[in-house]
Amino acid sequence: VLERFRDRLSPRVEAVVASADRLAEKRLLRSLGIPTALFDDEVSLDAPCIVKTRRGGYDGRGQIRCTTSAERLAAVAELPDPIVEGLVPFDREVSVIAARSADGDIVAYPLVENVHVDGILRTSVAPVDGPDPTGLVTTFLDRLGYVGVVAIELFDVGGELVANEFAPRVHNSGHWTIEGAVTSQFEQHVRAVCGLPLGDASPIGRSTMTNIIGELPDMRAVLAEPGAHLHLYGKEPRAGRKLGHITHVRRDG
Amino acid sequence: VLERFRDRLSPRVEAVVASADRLAEKRLLRSLGIPTALFDDEVSLDAPCIVKTRRGGYDGRGQIRCTTSAERLAAVAELPDPIVEGLVPFDREVSVIAARSADGDIVAYPLVENVHVDGILRTSVAPVDGPDPTGLVTTFLDRLGYVGVVAIELFDVGGELVANEFAPRVHNSGHWTIEGAVTSQFEQHVRAVCGLPLGDASPIGRSTMTNIIGELPDMRAVLAEPGAHLHLYGKEPRAGRKLGHITHVRRDG
Repeated sequence: VLERFRDRLSPRVEAVVASADRLAEKRLLRSLGIPTALFDDEVSLDAPCIVKTRRGGYDGRGQIRCTTSAERLAAVAELPDPIVEGLVPFDREVSVIAARSADGDIVAYPLVENVHVDGILRTSVAPVDGPDPTGLVTTFLDRLGYVGVVAIELFDVGGELVANEFAPRVHNSGHWTIEGAVTSQFEQHVRAVCGLPLGDASPIGRSTMTNIIGELPDMRAVLAEPGAHLHLYGKEPRAGRKLGHITHVRRDG
Repeated sequence: VLERFRDRLSPRVEAVVASADRLAEKRLLRSLGIPTALFDDEVSLDAPCIVKTRRGGYDGRGQIRCTTSAERLAAVAELPDPIVEGLVPFDREVSVIAARSADGDIVAYPLVENVHVDGILRTSVAPVDGPDPTGLVTTFLDRLGYVGVVAIELFDVGGELVANEFAPRVHNSGHWTIEGAVTSQFEQHVRAVCGLPLGDASPIGRSTMTNIIGELPDMRAVLAEPGAHLHLYGKEPRAGRKLGHITHVRRDG
Protein backbone atom coordinates (compact mmCIF):
# COMPACT_ATOMS: atom_id res chain seq x y z
CA VAL A 1 0.00 0.00 0.00
CA LEU A 2 2.78 2.37 0.93
CA GLU A 3 4.36 1.98 -2.51
CA ARG A 4 1.23 3.29 -4.25
CA PHE A 5 1.28 6.51 -2.27
CA ARG A 6 5.01 6.96 -1.83
CA ASP A 7 5.33 9.95 -4.15
CA ARG A 8 2.57 11.71 -2.27
CA LEU A 9 3.92 11.00 1.20
CA SER A 10 5.81 13.65 3.13
CA PRO A 11 9.32 12.48 4.03
CA ARG A 12 8.48 12.37 7.73
CA VAL A 13 5.63 9.99 7.00
CA GLU A 14 8.16 7.73 5.29
CA ALA A 15 10.21 7.69 8.49
CA VAL A 16 7.13 7.04 10.60
CA VAL A 17 6.07 4.13 8.38
CA ALA A 18 9.60 2.71 8.19
CA SER A 19 10.05 2.89 11.97
CA ALA A 20 7.12 0.50 12.40
CA ASP A 21 8.82 -2.21 10.31
CA ARG A 22 12.31 -3.38 11.27
CA LEU A 23 13.10 -4.36 7.69
CA ALA A 24 11.99 -1.07 6.13
CA GLU A 25 13.78 0.75 8.95
CA LYS A 26 17.11 -0.94 8.20
CA ARG A 27 16.72 -0.39 4.46
CA LEU A 28 15.97 3.29 5.03
CA LEU A 29 19.02 3.70 7.28
CA ARG A 30 21.23 1.92 4.77
CA SER A 31 19.88 4.09 1.94
CA LEU A 32 21.02 7.12 3.95
CA GLY A 33 24.50 5.65 4.33
CA ILE A 34 24.02 4.94 8.03
CA PRO A 35 25.55 1.63 9.20
CA THR A 36 23.24 -0.96 10.76
CA ALA A 37 23.55 -4.54 12.00
CA LEU A 38 23.69 -7.26 9.35
CA PHE A 39 20.24 -8.67 8.63
CA ASP A 40 18.55 -11.66 7.00
CA ASP A 41 20.76 -13.28 4.31
CA GLU A 42 23.77 -11.23 5.45
CA VAL A 43 23.84 -13.18 8.71
CA SER A 44 25.59 -16.52 8.13
CA LEU A 45 23.50 -19.51 9.21
CA ASP A 46 25.77 -20.61 12.04
CA ALA A 47 26.32 -17.14 13.51
CA PRO A 48 24.54 -16.16 16.71
CA CYS A 49 21.66 -13.79 15.96
CA ILE A 50 18.43 -12.27 17.21
CA VAL A 51 15.23 -13.12 15.41
CA LYS A 52 12.66 -10.35 15.78
CA THR A 53 9.15 -9.80 14.59
CA ARG A 54 9.22 -6.99 12.04
CA ARG A 55 6.16 -5.22 13.43
CA GLY A 56 4.65 -4.52 16.82
CA GLY A 57 7.52 -5.60 19.08
CA TYR A 58 8.70 -3.26 21.82
CA ASP A 59 10.55 -3.36 25.15
CA GLY A 60 12.18 -6.67 24.13
CA ARG A 61 8.93 -8.39 23.20
CA GLY A 62 8.82 -10.41 19.97
CA GLN A 63 12.53 -11.21 20.07
CA ILE A 64 14.36 -14.54 20.37
CA ARG A 65 18.12 -14.84 20.82
CA CYS A 66 19.63 -17.77 18.92
CA THR A 67 23.06 -19.34 19.06
CA THR A 68 22.58 -22.32 16.67
CA SER A 69 21.10 -22.62 13.21
CA ALA A 70 18.46 -24.99 14.59
CA GLU A 71 17.33 -22.34 17.09
CA ARG A 72 17.29 -19.77 14.32
CA LEU A 73 15.09 -21.92 12.07
CA ALA A 74 12.70 -22.58 14.94
CA ALA A 75 12.53 -18.87 15.81
CA VAL A 76 11.89 -17.84 12.21
CA ALA A 77 9.06 -20.38 12.08
CA GLU A 78 7.63 -19.22 15.40
CA LEU A 79 7.62 -15.42 15.09
CA PRO A 80 5.22 -13.71 12.69
CA ASP A 81 6.94 -11.76 9.91
CA PRO A 82 10.47 -12.35 11.21
CA ILE A 83 13.73 -10.55 10.54
CA VAL A 84 17.11 -12.05 11.44
CA GLU A 85 19.59 -9.57 12.89
CA GLY A 86 23.28 -10.19 13.41
CA LEU A 87 24.69 -9.50 16.85
CA VAL A 88 26.62 -6.27 17.11
CA PRO A 89 29.63 -6.52 19.45
CA PHE A 90 28.94 -3.14 20.99
CA ASP A 91 30.77 -1.49 23.85
CA ARG A 92 27.68 0.35 24.96
CA GLU A 93 24.28 1.54 23.81
CA VAL A 94 23.79 5.23 23.18
CA SER A 95 21.13 7.40 21.59
CA VAL A 96 20.80 10.83 20.14
CA ILE A 97 17.69 12.98 20.32
CA ALA A 98 17.51 15.69 17.68
CA ALA A 99 15.00 17.95 16.01
CA ARG A 100 14.61 19.59 12.64
CA SER A 101 12.42 22.65 12.18
CA ALA A 102 10.20 23.41 9.21
CA ASP A 103 12.89 25.92 8.16
CA GLY A 104 15.50 23.16 8.11
CA ASP A 105 17.32 24.15 11.30
CA ILE A 106 18.67 21.20 13.25
CA VAL A 107 19.53 20.94 16.93
CA ALA A 108 20.81 17.79 18.60
CA TYR A 109 20.90 17.04 22.31
CA PRO A 110 24.17 15.66 23.62
CA LEU A 111 24.90 11.93 23.45
CA VAL A 112 22.94 9.73 25.90
CA GLU A 113 24.22 6.42 27.26
CA ASN A 114 21.50 3.83 27.82
CA VAL A 115 21.38 0.61 29.79
CA HIS A 116 18.75 -1.96 28.85
CA VAL A 117 17.87 -4.97 30.99
CA ASP A 118 15.75 -7.72 29.42
CA GLY A 119 15.19 -5.43 26.46
CA ILE A 120 13.72 -2.63 28.59
CA LEU A 121 15.46 0.71 29.06
CA ARG A 122 16.55 1.04 32.69
CA THR A 123 18.75 4.13 32.82
CA SER A 124 19.87 6.96 30.58
CA VAL A 125 22.79 9.25 31.44
CA ALA A 126 23.50 12.50 29.60
CA PRO A 127 25.68 14.11 28.54
CA VAL A 128 28.35 11.45 28.01
CA ASP A 129 31.57 11.63 26.04
CA GLY A 130 31.68 9.57 22.87
CA PRO A 131 31.65 9.69 19.08
CA ASP A 132 30.00 12.81 17.66
CA PRO A 133 26.60 11.83 16.20
CA THR A 134 26.05 15.20 14.48
CA GLY A 135 26.89 14.05 10.96
CA LEU A 136 24.71 10.97 11.16
CA VAL A 137 21.77 12.88 12.59
CA THR A 138 22.08 15.72 10.11
CA THR A 139 22.12 13.27 7.20
CA PHE A 140 19.07 11.46 8.58
CA LEU A 141 17.00 14.60 9.14
CA ASP A 142 18.04 16.53 6.02
CA ARG A 143 17.78 13.65 3.56
CA LEU A 144 14.29 12.84 4.82
CA GLY A 145 13.23 16.48 5.05
CA TYR A 146 12.12 15.45 8.52
CA VAL A 147 10.28 17.92 10.78
CA GLY A 148 10.00 17.19 14.50
CA VAL A 149 11.94 15.26 17.14
CA VAL A 150 13.62 11.97 16.32
CA ALA A 151 15.47 9.53 18.58
CA ILE A 152 18.10 7.31 17.00
CA GLU A 153 19.28 4.38 19.11
CA LEU A 154 22.86 3.45 18.33
CA PHE A 155 25.56 0.99 19.24
CA ASP A 156 28.97 2.39 20.08
CA VAL A 157 31.36 -0.16 18.55
CA GLY A 158 34.86 0.97 19.38
CA GLY A 159 33.98 4.57 18.62
CA GLU A 160 31.98 3.81 15.46
CA LEU A 161 28.24 4.44 15.61
CA VAL A 162 25.97 1.71 14.25
CA ALA A 163 22.24 2.44 14.13
CA ASN A 164 19.93 0.02 15.89
CA GLU A 165 16.56 1.65 15.40
CA PHE A 166 14.91 5.04 15.42
CA ALA A 167 11.73 6.47 16.86
CA PRO A 168 10.09 9.30 14.87
CA ARG A 169 8.99 11.05 18.06
CA VAL A 170 10.04 11.97 21.58
CA HIS A 171 11.68 9.03 23.30
CA ASN A 172 12.17 7.50 26.74
CA SER A 173 15.93 8.09 26.48
CA GLY A 174 15.18 11.82 26.12
CA HIS A 175 12.99 12.19 29.22
CA TRP A 176 16.00 13.59 31.11
CA THR A 177 15.66 16.74 28.97
CA ILE A 178 12.58 17.80 31.00
CA GLU A 179 14.79 18.97 33.85
CA GLY A 180 18.25 18.36 32.41
CA ALA A 181 18.22 20.54 29.29
CA VAL A 182 17.30 24.15 28.60
CA THR A 183 14.46 23.02 26.30
CA SER A 184 12.74 19.66 26.84
CA GLN A 185 12.28 17.23 23.95
CA PHE A 186 8.53 17.71 24.30
CA GLU A 187 8.68 21.50 23.87
CA GLN A 188 11.19 20.98 21.08
CA HIS A 189 8.81 18.73 19.15
CA VAL A 190 5.95 21.20 19.53
CA ARG A 191 8.21 24.04 18.38
CA ALA A 192 9.29 22.03 15.32
CA VAL A 193 5.88 20.83 14.14
CA CYS A 194 4.31 24.25 14.77
CA GLY A 195 6.90 25.93 12.55
CA LEU A 196 8.44 27.86 15.45
CA PRO A 197 12.16 28.40 16.11
CA LEU A 198 13.88 25.49 17.86
CA GLY A 199 15.02 25.90 21.45
CA ASP A 200 18.41 25.57 23.10
CA ALA A 201 19.27 21.86 23.51
CA SER A 202 22.17 22.46 25.90
CA PRO A 203 22.30 20.29 29.00
CA ILE A 204 22.02 21.75 32.50
CA GLY A 205 24.48 19.69 34.47
CA ARG A 206 24.55 15.90 34.19
CA SER A 207 21.33 13.90 34.32
CA THR A 208 20.57 10.32 35.22
CA MET A 209 17.11 9.07 34.28
CA THR A 210 15.94 5.82 35.87
CA ASN A 211 12.76 4.13 34.71
CA ILE A 212 10.24 2.86 37.24
CA ILE A 213 9.36 -0.60 35.97
CA GLY A 214 6.79 -3.07 37.26
CA GLU A 215 6.26 -1.69 40.74
CA LEU A 216 6.18 1.73 42.34
CA PRO A 217 9.01 2.76 44.64
CA ASP A 218 8.63 4.31 48.10
CA MET A 219 7.62 7.76 46.92
CA ARG A 220 8.49 9.50 50.19
CA ALA A 221 12.02 8.13 49.93
CA VAL A 222 12.38 9.24 46.31
CA LEU A 223 11.03 12.72 47.01
CA ALA A 224 13.33 13.08 50.02
CA GLU A 225 16.37 12.77 47.72
CA PRO A 226 17.65 16.27 46.95
CA GLY A 227 17.08 17.17 43.31
CA ALA A 228 15.13 14.01 42.44
CA HIS A 229 12.37 14.64 39.91
CA LEU A 230 9.62 12.04 40.07
CA HIS A 231 7.28 11.41 37.15
CA LEU A 232 4.40 8.94 37.44
CA TYR A 233 2.30 8.02 34.42
CA GLY A 234 -0.83 6.97 36.31
CA LYS A 235 -0.62 3.37 35.08
CA GLU A 236 -1.50 0.28 37.07
CA PRO A 237 1.62 -1.61 38.20
CA ARG A 238 2.29 -4.76 36.17
CA ALA A 239 5.51 -6.76 35.66
CA GLY A 240 7.71 -5.17 32.99
CA ARG A 241 5.49 -2.11 32.60
CA LYS A 242 6.99 1.40 32.56
CA LEU A 243 5.14 3.22 35.33
CA GLY A 244 7.21 6.39 35.51
CA HIS A 245 10.74 7.66 35.80
CA ILE A 246 13.03 9.56 38.13
CA THR A 247 15.57 12.10 36.93
CA HIS A 248 18.48 13.28 39.02
CA VAL A 249 20.31 16.34 37.76
CA ARG A 250 23.76 17.02 39.16
CA ARG A 251 24.04 20.70 38.48
CA ASP A 252 27.52 21.31 39.83
CA GLY A 253 28.92 18.94 37.20
CA VAL B 1 -19.48 34.09 60.65
CA LEU B 2 -15.78 33.36 60.84
CA GLU B 3 -15.75 34.12 64.56
CA ARG B 4 -18.34 31.41 65.28
CA PHE B 5 -16.19 28.72 63.69
CA ARG B 6 -12.75 30.04 64.54
CA ASP B 7 -11.92 27.32 67.06
CA ARG B 8 -12.79 24.67 64.51
CA LEU B 9 -10.84 26.22 61.63
CA SER B 10 -7.45 24.87 60.63
CA PRO B 11 -4.78 27.55 60.87
CA ARG B 12 -4.30 27.58 57.09
CA VAL B 13 -7.99 28.35 56.64
CA GLU B 14 -7.47 31.36 58.90
CA ALA B 15 -4.73 32.58 56.56
CA VAL B 16 -6.88 31.95 53.49
CA VAL B 17 -9.80 33.87 55.00
CA ALA B 18 -7.60 36.70 56.22
CA SER B 19 -5.89 37.08 52.84
CA ALA B 20 -9.24 37.89 51.27
CA ASP B 21 -9.75 40.90 53.56
CA ARG B 22 -7.06 43.58 53.73
CA LEU B 23 -8.06 44.53 57.28
CA ALA B 24 -8.00 40.97 58.64
CA GLU B 25 -4.77 40.40 56.74
CA LYS B 26 -3.03 43.35 58.40
CA ARG B 27 -4.34 42.38 61.83
CA LEU B 28 -3.11 38.83 61.36
CA LEU B 29 0.35 40.03 60.29
CA ARG B 30 0.54 42.40 63.26
CA SER B 31 -0.56 39.64 65.65
CA LEU B 32 2.44 37.62 64.39
CA GLY B 33 4.79 40.54 65.06
CA ILE B 34 5.30 41.25 61.36
CA PRO B 35 5.43 44.98 60.50
CA THR B 36 2.88 46.37 58.05
CA ALA B 37 1.94 49.78 56.68
CA LEU B 38 -0.05 52.03 59.01
CA PHE B 39 -3.79 51.69 58.42
CA ASP B 40 -7.10 53.43 59.12
CA ASP B 41 -6.88 55.64 62.26
CA GLU B 42 -3.10 55.28 62.35
CA VAL B 43 -2.84 57.31 59.14
CA SER B 44 -3.10 61.00 59.99
CA LEU B 45 -5.82 62.82 58.05
CA ASP B 46 -3.49 65.05 56.06
CA ALA B 47 -0.99 62.30 55.13
CA PRO B 48 -0.94 60.91 51.61
CA CYS B 49 -2.52 57.46 51.57
CA ILE B 50 -4.07 54.76 49.44
CA VAL B 51 -7.70 53.90 49.99
CA LYS B 52 -8.44 50.31 49.02
CA THR B 53 -11.48 48.12 49.01
CA ARG B 54 -11.00 45.44 51.67
CA ARG B 55 -12.25 42.58 49.51
CA GLY B 56 -12.06 41.59 45.85
CA GLY B 57 -9.43 44.06 44.62
CA TYR B 58 -6.49 42.72 42.61
CA ASP B 59 -3.89 43.93 40.12
CA GLY B 60 -4.36 47.49 41.34
CA ARG B 61 -8.14 47.49 40.98
CA GLY B 62 -10.23 48.95 43.79
CA GLN B 63 -7.50 51.37 44.87
CA ILE B 64 -7.40 55.16 44.93
CA ARG B 65 -4.28 57.18 45.74
CA CYS B 66 -5.00 60.30 47.77
CA THR B 67 -2.84 63.27 48.66
CA THR B 68 -5.36 65.46 50.47
CA SER B 69 -7.89 64.78 53.20
CA ALA B 70 -10.68 65.78 50.81
CA GLU B 71 -9.58 63.15 48.34
CA ARG B 72 -9.36 60.61 51.14
CA LEU B 73 -12.89 61.35 52.33
CA ALA B 74 -14.21 61.08 48.79
CA ALA B 75 -12.39 57.78 48.21
CA VAL B 76 -13.65 56.30 51.47
CA ALA B 77 -17.17 57.23 50.45
CA GLU B 78 -16.72 55.83 46.95
CA LEU B 79 -15.11 52.44 47.57
CA PRO B 80 -17.12 49.63 49.16
CA ASP B 81 -15.74 48.49 52.52
CA PRO B 82 -12.67 50.71 52.42
CA ILE B 83 -9.38 50.54 54.29
CA VAL B 84 -6.97 53.48 54.43
CA GLU B 85 -3.32 52.54 54.12
CA GLY B 86 -0.37 54.80 54.80
CA LEU B 87 2.26 55.11 52.11
CA VAL B 88 5.41 53.13 52.78
CA PRO B 89 8.57 54.92 51.59
CA PHE B 90 10.04 51.73 50.19
CA ASP B 91 13.27 51.32 48.24
CA ARG B 92 11.90 48.38 46.31
CA GLU B 93 9.25 45.68 46.35
CA VAL B 94 10.30 42.13 47.10
CA SER B 95 8.55 38.87 47.87
CA VAL B 96 9.34 35.57 49.41
CA ILE B 97 7.81 32.26 48.37
CA ALA B 98 8.01 29.56 51.00
CA ALA B 99 6.39 26.29 51.93
CA ARG B 100 5.69 24.36 55.09
CA SER B 101 5.09 20.61 55.06
CA ALA B 102 2.62 18.70 57.18
CA ASP B 103 5.63 17.59 59.25
CA GLY B 104 6.54 21.21 59.96
CA ASP B 105 9.54 21.42 57.63
CA ILE B 106 9.98 24.81 56.02
CA VAL B 107 11.78 25.75 52.82
CA ALA B 108 11.99 29.25 51.42
CA TYR B 109 12.95 30.27 47.90
CA PRO B 110 15.47 33.08 47.65
CA LEU B 111 14.33 36.70 47.75
CA VAL B 112 12.54 37.99 44.63
CA GLU B 113 12.55 41.61 43.50
CA ASN B 114 9.33 42.72 41.85
CA VAL B 115 8.42 45.70 39.70
CA HIS B 116 4.77 46.71 39.49
CA VAL B 117 3.40 49.17 36.95
CA ASP B 118 -0.13 50.52 37.49
CA GLY B 119 -0.56 47.97 40.27
CA ILE B 120 0.22 45.01 38.01
CA LEU B 121 3.33 42.86 38.41
CA ARG B 122 5.59 43.38 35.41
CA THR B 123 8.85 41.63 36.26
CA SER B 124 10.31 39.44 38.97
CA VAL B 125 14.04 38.81 39.34
CA ALA B 126 15.48 36.07 41.56
CA PRO B 127 17.66 35.54 43.41
CA VAL B 128 18.50 39.07 44.60
CA ASP B 129 20.59 40.21 47.52
CA GLY B 130 18.68 41.82 50.36
CA PRO B 131 17.45 41.39 53.91
CA ASP B 132 17.02 37.76 54.96
CA PRO B 133 13.28 36.96 55.13
CA THR B 134 13.77 33.59 56.83
CA GLY B 135 12.80 34.70 60.33
CA LEU B 136 9.67 36.49 59.16
CA VAL B 137 8.56 33.56 57.00
CA THR B 138 9.27 30.96 59.68
CA THR B 139 7.23 32.93 62.20
CA PHE B 140 4.37 33.26 59.75
CA LEU B 141 4.24 29.58 58.80
CA ASP B 142 4.94 28.09 62.21
CA ARG B 143 2.62 30.32 64.21
CA LEU B 144 -0.23 29.57 61.79
CA GLY B 145 0.62 25.86 61.52
CA TYR B 146 0.38 26.57 57.80
CA VAL B 147 0.72 23.73 55.26
CA GLY B 148 1.40 24.57 51.61
CA VAL B 149 3.02 27.37 49.63
CA VAL B 150 2.64 31.00 50.68
CA ALA B 151 3.82 34.17 48.99
CA ILE B 152 4.47 37.20 51.16
CA GLU B 153 4.83 40.52 49.33
CA LEU B 154 7.10 42.88 51.19
CA PHE B 155 8.53 46.37 51.04
CA ASP B 156 12.26 46.75 51.51
CA VAL B 157 12.58 49.95 53.51
CA GLY B 158 16.27 50.62 53.99
CA GLY B 159 16.89 46.96 54.70
CA GLU B 160 13.85 46.46 56.94
CA LEU B 161 11.08 44.24 55.61
CA VAL B 162 7.51 45.51 55.92
CA ALA B 163 4.73 43.16 54.83
CA ASN B 164 2.32 44.44 52.21
CA GLU B 165 0.10 41.41 51.68
CA PHE B 166 0.28 37.67 51.41
CA ALA B 167 -1.22 35.07 49.11
CA PRO B 168 -1.97 31.65 50.65
CA ARG B 169 -1.00 29.86 47.44
CA VAL B 170 1.45 29.81 44.54
CA HIS B 171 2.06 33.31 43.25
CA ASN B 172 2.91 35.16 40.05
CA SER B 173 6.20 36.32 41.58
CA GLY B 174 7.13 32.65 41.98
CA HIS B 175 6.54 31.59 38.36
CA TRP B 176 10.30 31.85 37.73
CA THR B 177 10.72 28.72 39.88
CA ILE B 178 9.32 26.55 37.03
CA GLU B 179 12.63 26.74 35.18
CA GLY B 180 14.72 28.74 37.63
CA ALA B 181 14.65 26.53 40.73
CA VAL B 182 15.29 22.85 41.37
CA THR B 183 11.67 22.39 42.50
CA SER B 184 8.91 24.63 41.15
CA GLN B 185 6.47 26.35 43.51
CA PHE B 186 3.69 24.24 41.97
CA GLU B 187 5.37 20.91 42.71
CA GLN B 188 6.29 22.29 46.15
CA HIS B 189 2.67 23.06 46.97
CA VAL B 190 1.54 19.59 45.87
CA ARG B 191 4.31 17.99 47.92
CA ALA B 192 3.27 20.01 50.99
CA VAL B 193 -0.47 19.44 50.86
CA CYS B 194 -0.01 15.74 50.04
CA GLY B 195 2.13 15.24 53.14
CA LEU B 196 5.25 14.48 51.07
CA PRO B 197 8.78 15.71 51.74
CA LEU B 198 9.48 19.23 50.44
CA GLY B 199 11.80 19.68 47.46
CA ASP B 200 15.01 21.63 47.02
CA ALA B 201 14.18 25.35 46.62
CA SER B 202 17.65 26.32 45.39
CA PRO B 203 17.82 28.59 42.36
CA ILE B 204 19.40 27.42 39.08
CA GLY B 205 21.17 30.55 37.89
CA ARG B 206 19.42 33.91 37.87
CA SER B 207 15.90 34.25 36.52
CA THR B 208 13.95 37.15 35.13
CA MET B 209 10.21 36.63 34.75
CA THR B 210 8.30 39.11 32.59
CA ASN B 211 4.53 39.09 32.48
CA ILE B 212 2.72 39.28 29.15
CA ILE B 213 0.00 41.84 29.76
CA GLY B 214 -2.83 42.98 27.50
CA GLU B 215 -1.46 41.81 24.17
CA LEU B 216 0.55 38.87 22.93
CA PRO B 217 4.12 39.43 21.78
CA ASP B 218 5.66 38.16 18.54
CA MET B 219 5.97 34.55 19.60
CA ARG B 220 8.58 33.67 16.97
CA ALA B 221 10.80 36.45 18.25
CA VAL B 222 10.39 35.34 21.86
CA LEU B 223 11.09 31.70 21.06
CA ALA B 224 14.15 32.66 19.02
CA GLU B 225 15.76 34.11 22.17
CA PRO B 226 18.13 31.52 23.61
CA GLY B 227 16.85 30.17 26.89
CA ALA B 228 13.52 32.03 26.82
CA HIS B 229 10.69 30.01 28.33
CA LEU B 230 7.28 31.11 27.05
CA HIS B 231 4.09 30.35 28.97
CA LEU B 232 0.70 31.27 27.53
CA TYR B 233 -2.45 30.88 29.58
CA GLY B 234 -4.89 30.55 26.67
CA LYS B 235 -6.75 33.74 27.60
CA GLU B 236 -8.22 36.24 25.17
CA PRO B 237 -6.14 39.44 24.99
CA ARG B 238 -7.66 42.37 26.90
CA ALA B 239 -6.07 45.55 28.25
CA GLY B 240 -4.45 44.92 31.64
CA ARG B 241 -5.01 41.15 31.53
CA LYS B 242 -2.19 38.73 32.34
CA LEU B 243 -1.97 36.49 29.28
CA GLY B 244 1.23 34.64 30.06
CA HIS B 245 4.82 35.13 31.08
CA ILE B 246 8.34 34.67 29.81
CA THR B 247 11.19 33.46 32.00
CA HIS B 248 14.83 33.90 31.10
CA VAL B 249 17.32 31.92 33.14
CA ARG B 250 20.95 32.98 33.05
CA ARG B 251 22.59 29.77 34.08
CA ASP B 252 26.19 30.94 34.05
CA GLY B 253 25.43 33.42 36.87
